[in-house]
Amino acid sequence: MPVPTSPAEAAPVRVGLIGAGRIGVSHATLLARRVAGARLVAVADPRPGVAADVAESLGARAEEDPAAIFAADDVEAVVITASSTAHAELVVAAARAGKAVFCEKPMAMSAEDAARAVAAADEAGVSLQVGFNRRFDPGFAAAHDAIEAGRIGSVQLMRSLTRDPGLANPAGVPPWTIFTQTLIHDFDALLWLNPGANAVSVHATADALVAPEFKDAGLLDTAVVVIRFDNGAIATAEASFSAAYGYDVRGEVFGSGGMVTAGDGSTSTRHLLTADGDTVETSRSDTDLFAVAYTGELAAFCDAVRGGTEPVVTGRDAQRALAIALACIESVETGGTVDVKPVGA
Amino acid sequence: MPVPTSPAEAAPVRVGLIGAGRIGVSHATLLARRVAGARLVAVADPRPGVAADVAESLGARAEEDPAAIFAADDVEAVVITASSTAHAELVVAAARAGKAVFCEKPMAMSAEDAARAVAAADEAGVSLQVGFNRRFDPGFAAAHDAIEAGRIGSVQLMRSLTRDPGLANPAGVPPWTIFTQTLIHDFDALLWLNPGANAVSVHATADALVAPEFKDAGLLDTAVVVIRFDNGAIATAEASFSAAYGYDVRGEVFGSGGMVTAGDGSTSTRHLLTADGDTVETSRSDTDLFAVAYTGELAAFCDAVRGGTEPVVTGRDAQRALAIALACIESVETGGTVDVKPVGA
Amino acid sequence: MPVPTSPAEAAPVRVGLIGAGRIGVSHATLLARRVAGARLVAVADPRPGVAADVAESLGARAEEDPAAIFAADDVEAVVITASSTAHAELVVAAARAGKAVFCEKPMAMSAEDAARAVAAADEAGVSLQVGFNRRFDPGFAAAHDAIEAGRIGSVQLMRSLTRDPGLANPAGVPPWTIFTQTLIHDFDALLWLNPGANAVSVHATADALVAPEFKDAGLLDTAVVVIRFDNGAIATAEASFSAAYGYDVRGEVFGSGGMVTAGDGSTSTRHLLTADGDTVETSRSDTDLFAVAYTGELAAFCDAVRGGTEPVVTGRDAQRALAIALACIESVETGGTVDVKPVGA
Amino acid sequence: MPVPTSPAEAAPVRVGLIGAGRIGVSHATLLARRVAGARLVAVADPRPGVAADVAESLGARAEEDPAAIFAADDVEAVVITASSTAHAELVVAAARAGKAVFCEKPMAMSAEDAARAVAAADEAGVSLQVGFNRRFDPGFAAAHDAIEAGRIGSVQLMRSLTRDPGLANPAGVPPWTIFTQTLIHDFDALLWLNPGANAVSVHATADALVAPEFKDAGLLDTAVVVIRFDNGAIATAEASFSAAYGYDVRGEVFGSGGMVTAGDGSTSTRHLLTADGDTVETSRSDTDLFAVAYTGELAAFCDAVRGGTEPVVTGRDAQRALAIALACIESVETGGTVDVKPVGA
Repeated sequence: MPVPTSPAEAAPVRVGLIGAGRIGVSHATLLARRVAGARLVAVADPRPGVAADVAESLGARAEEDPAAIFAADDVEAVVITASSTAHAELVVAAARAGKAVFCEKPMAMSAEDAARAVAAADEAGVSLQVGFNRRFDPGFAAAHDAIEAGRIGSVQLMRSLTRDPGLANPAGVPPWTIFTQTLIHDFDALLWLNPGANAVSVHATADALVAPEFKDAGLLDTAVVVIRFDNGAIATAEASFSAAYGYDVRGEVFGSGGMVTAGDGSTSTRHLLTADGDTVETSRSDTDLFAVAYTGELAAFCDAVRGGTEPVVTGRDAQRALAIALACIESVETGGTVDVKPVGA
Repeated sequence: MPVPTSPAEAAPVRVGLIGAGRIGVSHATLLARRVAGARLVAVADPRPGVAADVAESLGARAEEDPAAIFAADDVEAVVITASSTAHAELVVAAARAGKAVFCEKPMAMSAEDAARAVAAADEAGVSLQVGFNRRFDPGFAAAHDAIEAGRIGSVQLMRSLTRDPGLANPAGVPPWTIFTQTLIHDFDALLWLNPGANAVSVHATADALVAPEFKDAGLLDTAVVVIRFDNGAIATAEASFSAAYGYDVRGEVFGSGGMVTAGDGSTSTRHLLTADGDTVETSRSDTDLFAVAYTGELAAFCDAVRGGTEPVVTGRDAQRALAIALACIESVETGGTVDVKPVGA
Repeated sequence: MPVPTSPAEAAPVRVGLIGAGRIGVSHATLLARRVAGARLVAVADPRPGVAADVAESLGARAEEDPAAIFAADDVEAVVITASSTAHAELVVAAARAGKAVFCEKPMAMSAEDAARAVAAADEAGVSLQVGFNRRFDPGFAAAHDAIEAGRIGSVQLMRSLTRDPGLANPAGVPPWTIFTQTLIHDFDALLWLNPGANAVSVHATADALVAPEFKDAGLLDTAVVVIRFDNGAIATAEASFSAAYGYDVRGEVFGSGGMVTAGDGSTSTRHLLTADGDTVETSRSDTDLFAVAYTGELAAFCDAVRGGTEPVVTGRDAQRALAIALACIESVETGGTVDVKPVGA
Repeated sequence: MPVPTSPAEAAPVRVGLIGAGRIGVSHATLLARRVAGARLVAVADPRPGVAADVAESLGARAEEDPAAIFAADDVEAVVITASSTAHAELVVAAARAGKAVFCEKPMAMSAEDAARAVAAADEAGVSLQVGFNRRFDPGFAAAHDAIEAGRIGSVQLMRSLTRDPGLANPAGVPPWTIFTQTLIHDFDALLWLNPGANAVSVHATADALVAPEFKDAGLLDTAVVVIRFDNGAIATAEASFSAAYGYDVRGEVFGSGGMVTAGDGSTSTRHLLTADGDTVETSRSDTDLFAVAYTGELAAFCDAVRGGTEPVVTGRDAQRALAIALACIESVETGGTVDVKPVGA
């Protein structure tokens, strides 16, 4: 991982972060302590006292109202890690306030909201980057490089999976989360690893195998999706909300000339051999497995903001992944194969 | 791999083999040279001279007419490695002649033929084993042991794949081969690795990505199948007729308590590190990757014949795998999800 | 592992085995049940009843006196798996009786005895093969192929190690066993993997770390040896009598153009992932880890006997490995670097 | 890798760096851009213009005279990445100037210089940390944790190796570099991974196998060292100046209860499978392989400086590793086993 090369004399990007939940705290900490091109100046969270805790320890000021972030003159860029349903609205508000935006996935929960968010950023002329973390994982990035370089020929079969280490509280999870929040990573990864191709149709199978008692409430915790692409490739995306062995993210792309795989869940090179066998540790969380990727995506965002270049992962990428997620929901509801709606130009 | 423990003073099972194609020659050689419990006495192939070549080098006699095998008093058991369309009829004939039968997959191409073959063996009271090789691969067997022992909890997600190293002559391949001959291995593996569960429905996606010019002739060379089981498990089976890197067979079973995987395509423990990186060799063929499994299944068959015990892989197993394959064909034809027909008691 | 290609019409080699201890029973079983080119006709063991047990179960006759094997007209070849101190004398006796000889390592405990054994075989014109198992392990063989093919350039650094899964009874182990019986495998492997080179000198360090209470009795259970070769290569050989995680045999050869490694101790491709991490099984014993190699070396011996060709591992190879072991003993005794005595032409 | 938890409101440590060679530029960049607890204020290098290049791009000022760093009021801590022979003198000068010191290995080239450097830091009451990078590599750190936790029992056999990807210019390398600069890492690692034990004696073997034409000039590029510890453990340390496949650092510790290994040279989780086999990339340089470790050691240094705690790797650690290196030199010169001089209290 090369250290970013943007001119250091350029001042760090002054960032305000909205939403101090688990991933918000992680991103805030990385911005304050690992991303040289960023300076965390404010953290906002509507829950009383929540922003203060994290802001104080990181040398930033706390706000309860996100609007204070948008109004702040010393904030150039906003990192949105609020609850998913609020994302699109916050992107629009940030863009209208002239702030560059990094928005955690999903950028929006509907195609209309996604289009509004992208349009707002376009109109404001601000950078808009979405938090698809595979793009910045060294293994996935190397796989992408190999595919782009033609080392596996034309893509024919693909697989991407996300398995979470555990579902803390099924009661609080919105019904279609597995598609809009979990598999959305895989949908982006599959689009990215099949360069130039578009998703045509999906067939989704989903069930409540982890927490069957929440099935009636509409919570699906296990899903398998088959996606057809317009270059013929057939992809499988798979997710579970409860992997006993840790956070598991893997990708596999098979082509006419070979195969690349990425992701193995191990978190160090250590092997421990005992009477139980030869064991490597597996990751405990996304912030563990994607420590490098999370730092990298925030650094790349700051570089894009400061350098005036287009972000590596755009709002349009979010729209394309969302279109697959929405088709999956319809597929589960109808039991059939569903066309993926093209994202308007 | 423990050496089989059947009494050695028992005479070897006298075997006649029918069909001296590639896999027939491999099985004949193993029977003659690696399976102590077998004695290869005859090889039959209707193609003039074909049986003679292999029989002579292995100390067996050659026949052109399979009927000569069935009529031979010194043949106790028949190994069928003829062309797939002839399998069921040969099983019936062998059983009626009172011979124990080892039949390469697929045992039959239709549910009716499969039922006839099983009935013939039952009526004759002869052993009938089918050539599902994963069962005898040490990695898959160890995975099965872990599942049976409850080490991964209840099965939720599964994957099995078969990728062949290359399609020599697409012109000669019957249309539904990818389901009836290739994925049938995966269907059996998935049933075996999900003990006690039955396949309920399938959704199959298939295309001609390797040899598109043969698509009009009905040849599908790439397929992805999603299978639902009655214990809720969702499985993916995947096949390609052309893997540039070799013969690739893998399995993955994910449950409430963990995951097991089996198969990695490497054929030795050697690593070669050069400026190109760290490289392990991959297998070139099924007879390479499954050398141990092919020996093991033939040895187990002979043990079952001599010991009078039921084979490890039965005709009923072949019927269950075939039922999935047939549902896949219907799924491709209709584009929808298709119920798997239960195999009659 | 290709099935051996010697003419099948050739009659199997009729083998008598001497010494029905653990490895003797393993070899006898492989000869009877896995090596098509062998027929086990007799098993001898001076301990009353010991030979009978194994012989009966394998369809061979039992003898108490090894001399009965040498005298038997129906024995063409002798496999010696007796206690190490008896090996050389048995090789001489077998050769004088005109029998081909496969002798487990060590062929002899002194240079004089080794020379006598080789001379006896030469004079009698019989095949003499020694049981250096790495030669027949697929990983080590592939490493050897890469070295021979020049893929790692000229050899500079080497490593070979043997770790046993446990020392059952230290009381019964002769003092220098770690060099003459355990590391002798590594010495042969290092000579074989450094083609054309000769060992020049050794510096050995050894101690009783596993069973310190037996140190006064002269039992050394842990050793590290540094060997210089006449092509400049520096090798390390390492052994322990008690590896908690199983039988561990590995090799590493580093050259001007790259590196090869072989051996990883895992016994199947299965991975089991749980909250404890990602675990593969490790081997429990040499007969487990080297199942393929043990079969292969006995099959190769029979092929050499029947084909009249020189064995792949000769008595001279045993002499060269022993010369290193003997230099190690002197090195431990003197604390200095010791020249390896060249093996006379 | 957890993000450091020192109070963020604490001001970053103001660092001056001396020596803008390859590793100096890498450390300067990490200090400026990856270590939130550091602020790089000055870079000194006596070679005209060299400091200016790196300082300018990182927002620091350039100096030609290291003394300017020591005299600067705005410098709290000095990072020494000058040529090895100057290290000890620079440590002493920095300490006398009241600056905390991070010194790249080797801290000194003689026991006397090492003692002087440590004494100077002690007298000045400043922090002194040495750049032993394994300590901060996640795999090695996890191995250390397992050993400390008793998971492999008592240590019996150890191995540590360093292989550099290539020797750019043998002409410029001082004679004993392989011990004082390369293997010194391994000596520290072995001491650290054998907690509580002391090195007793060494036997070193070294040669010029990479660049034989420089042997007469005293340059040794390949070495194997055997070290005895006072707890009985026997360790091997091994180095080469030219590994065709990349930068290779590995460790292995075997104990009465199991084994841990660390380091595998791969730099991402990507596998590329083609007709050539299954390949993972290997690291190209130490700054690639140890990107995380280099950041971690500088962050830990700043934390220790700001927190007033003892550094994780001390000057005494440097003395202990140097004592082994010096004994190795004597061992090569005499050909015998040499006692390691204890480091005075």
